[in-house]
Amino acid sequence: MKKNVLLAPGPTPVPPSALLDMALPIIHHREPEFKPIFDECRAGLKYLFQTEREVIILASSGTGAMEAAVTNFLRTGDKALFVNGGKFGERWGKIMKAYGVKPVEITVDWGKAVDPKAIEAALDADPEIRAVYFQASETSTAVRHPVKEIAAITGKRPDVICIADAITATGVFDLPMDEWGVDIVVTGSQKALMLPPGLGFIAWSAKAEGFMASANIPKFYFNLASEAKKQLEGQTAWTPAVSLIVGLKNVLAMIREEGLSNVHKRSARFAKATREAVKAMGLTLYAPESPSDACTAVNIPEGVDGGKVKKILRESYAVTVAGGQDQAKGKIVRIAHLGYVGTFDVITAISALEMALVDAGHKMQMGAGVAKAMEILREGA
Amino acid sequence: MKKNVLLAPGPTPVPPSALLDMALPIIHHREPEFKPIFDECRAGLKYLFQTEREVIILASSGTGAMEAAVTNFLRTGDKALFVNGGKFGERWGKIMKAYGVKPVEITVDWGKAVDPKAIEAALDADPEIRAVYFQASETSTAVRHPVKEIAAITGKRPDVICIADAITATGVFDLPMDEWGVDIVVTGSQKALMLPPGLGFIAWSAKAEGFMASANIPKFYFNLASEAKKQLEGQTAWTPAVSLIVGLKNVLAMIREEGLSNVHKRSARFAKATREAVKAMGLTLYAPESPSDACTAVNIPEGVDGGKVKKILRESYAVTVAGGQDQAKGKIVRIAHLGYVGTFDVITAISALEMALVDAGHKMQMGAGVAKAMEILREGA
Repeated sequence: MKKNVLLAPGPTPVPPSALLDMALPIIHHREPEFKPIFDECRAGLKYLFQTEREVIILASSGTGAMEAAVTNFLRTGDKALFVNGGKFGERWGKIMKAYGVKPVEITVDWGKAVDPKAIEAALDADPEIRAVYFQASETSTAVRHPVKEIAAITGKRPDVICIADAITATGVFDLPMDEWGVDIVVTGSQKALMLPPGLGFIAWSAKAEGFMASANIPKFYFNLASEAKKQLEGQTAWTPAVSLIVGLKNVLAMIREEGLSNVHKRSARFAKATREAVKAMGLTLYAPESPSDACTAVNIPEGVDGGKVKKILRESYAVTVAGGQDQAKGKIVRIAHLGYVGTFDVITAISALEMALVDAGHKMQMGAGVAKAMEILREGA
Repeated sequence: MKKNVLLAPGPTPVPPSALLDMALPIIHHREPEFKPIFDECRAGLKYLFQTEREVIILASSGTGAMEAAVTNFLRTGDKALFVNGGKFGERWGKIMKAYGVKPVEITVDWGKAVDPKAIEAALDADPEIRAVYFQASETSTAVRHPVKEIAAITGKRPDVICIADAITATGVFDLPMDEWGVDIVVTGSQKALMLPPGLGFIAWSAKAEGFMASANIPKFYFNLASEAKKQLEGQTAWTPAVSLIVGLKNVLAMIREEGLSNVHKRSARFAKATREAVKAMGLTLYAPESPSDACTAVNIPEGVDGGKVKKILRESYAVTVAGGQDQAKGKIVRIAHLGYVGTFDVITAISALEMALVDAGHKMQMGAGVAKAMEILREGA
């Protein structure tokens, strides 16, 4: 028997109470028992998204919600800016191309955050750009992009909206969309929401609603106008993922009970402890300047095979972390801090990483990382 | 305490073993533990769809798979025929319009099946029509459309494909897609597959693959070519609905163990028992000529309020059936026979209906329906 520990940035562990709620006999979504559950989810999502407007629930993965954030707000032939600093940034461009939107790309080195001035300059240079798409947290590089600063730039322009993929940001760090003027926020169920994958979420501002009125890109399943009409009445346009919505009610209640700012503080403390522990081990961070609190990308030291470290973590220690993708493949491991994680998940991650590195042939004194993590975790207790 | 009985045509009851499997700690879809589960699902789906080709799993409701069946096989401006004999038939036309396909509609009275000759005549009259979209089982009217006959018509035409929405047909009655030459078959998880909603499925023929090559309707999340490429390798393009796929493995094993033809026989026996019981009660069927074995639509007798019967069923007897939609609203109740249902679900349905009708003021002798159902259920035992 090996006790498995899941520490990848999604899917993340699902709390037992949510698993059990989802294992209850299924209910019918067109019958009266569904509406109170759905309405509680709607209220909890508004709290989570920090919006007075509606958060729409989709039966899809987060990518479906990303697609909806393009097709429902732009016109064929529109120009839109996107920040490409990782796998998920790149996806915005692919979605745009698939739907006849002209992408204007801002490339950012992997591990770096976008400079808001570059966005401002791009918008100044091309007044035809109608939207700025970016990641609040770029999961592939563990980078946090400057959401508030980007929203401040688009906020001054009546003809430009900003769209944050917050799939690993919502429920991880502060992102008050109404207050900051983030026009569209997208997330998914399998990250800080602590659920299995299968639900996408999207909320938009009154300004974005104006864009919606003129949007003409074809859509049906992800038609947000018809979906919103239904969901404001406590129903959905298509059959919803009922069991996941039952689980959603459970996890949203957990988030409310802890308090959103406490949830943020918890992720921040775990992320900080991990970062400092990694440095105490003599390692470096892949995204040292603007790290996301969703997960920490650790550079594998020279001469050690990152793929091998990840494999040892899984096979010898039953600990699942994420590796690097594309240009970061074999060079990093990514340790998650979002969702249903506690103090000793951090200790587990650091001690497992220390042991696996030594197993992989890295010369180091074990224990320095764990000691540093304990120091910070205790401070925050 | 009232013990709830769910007898609506989707969501249908989920077997306890599948509920428990889905309540196990979540696994990561990019790690080795996922692939054997996914591969077993792929094999089980081929068995269920009766195809040698691949069945693609989507994280969406069945409507997403319907959309994929339009956008991946047609070109903007193409003409496509669709059979509109109920709520779901109507949906094909709406999807086509949303994506710039010119719909050619064959209207069929609710409760009736389409005459294959009408399809042949429409294809003869307009050689520009490239596809025929219909429901194998139209859930809103409880009608079975003639799948084999329609496929025989399109099979003779190299430039026309046929597409069956089999959301309440797959796993209910025989639909050997390869043998009959049904080019595209679509289903969802919450019907005969006995799972919560949240998965869509689609399989297509080599002939349809040819159509795919020239299809130019924009798509991204539902791009079947990129999805198929990944799924043939045991992965998915986007994050899959992991917990539902874990449940899928369980229910597909149940279907294999029972044997597909036995599953079909079971639904057929329950459907026949229900239909004959209803007649023995002195009532009539909404779709007497070509009833689907997925569910039976019972005409509420004159002078009785159908909405009231449905309400009594729920509130007095805790039995959930479906009512009628649109023009059938208040006029019918629909009792499901698909998925995880047994002999005594039929007895429950009929006895509940008899009691509720009497409660609603209908003059009748209780027991005749139940007696008739027992006669048939015993024959089939």
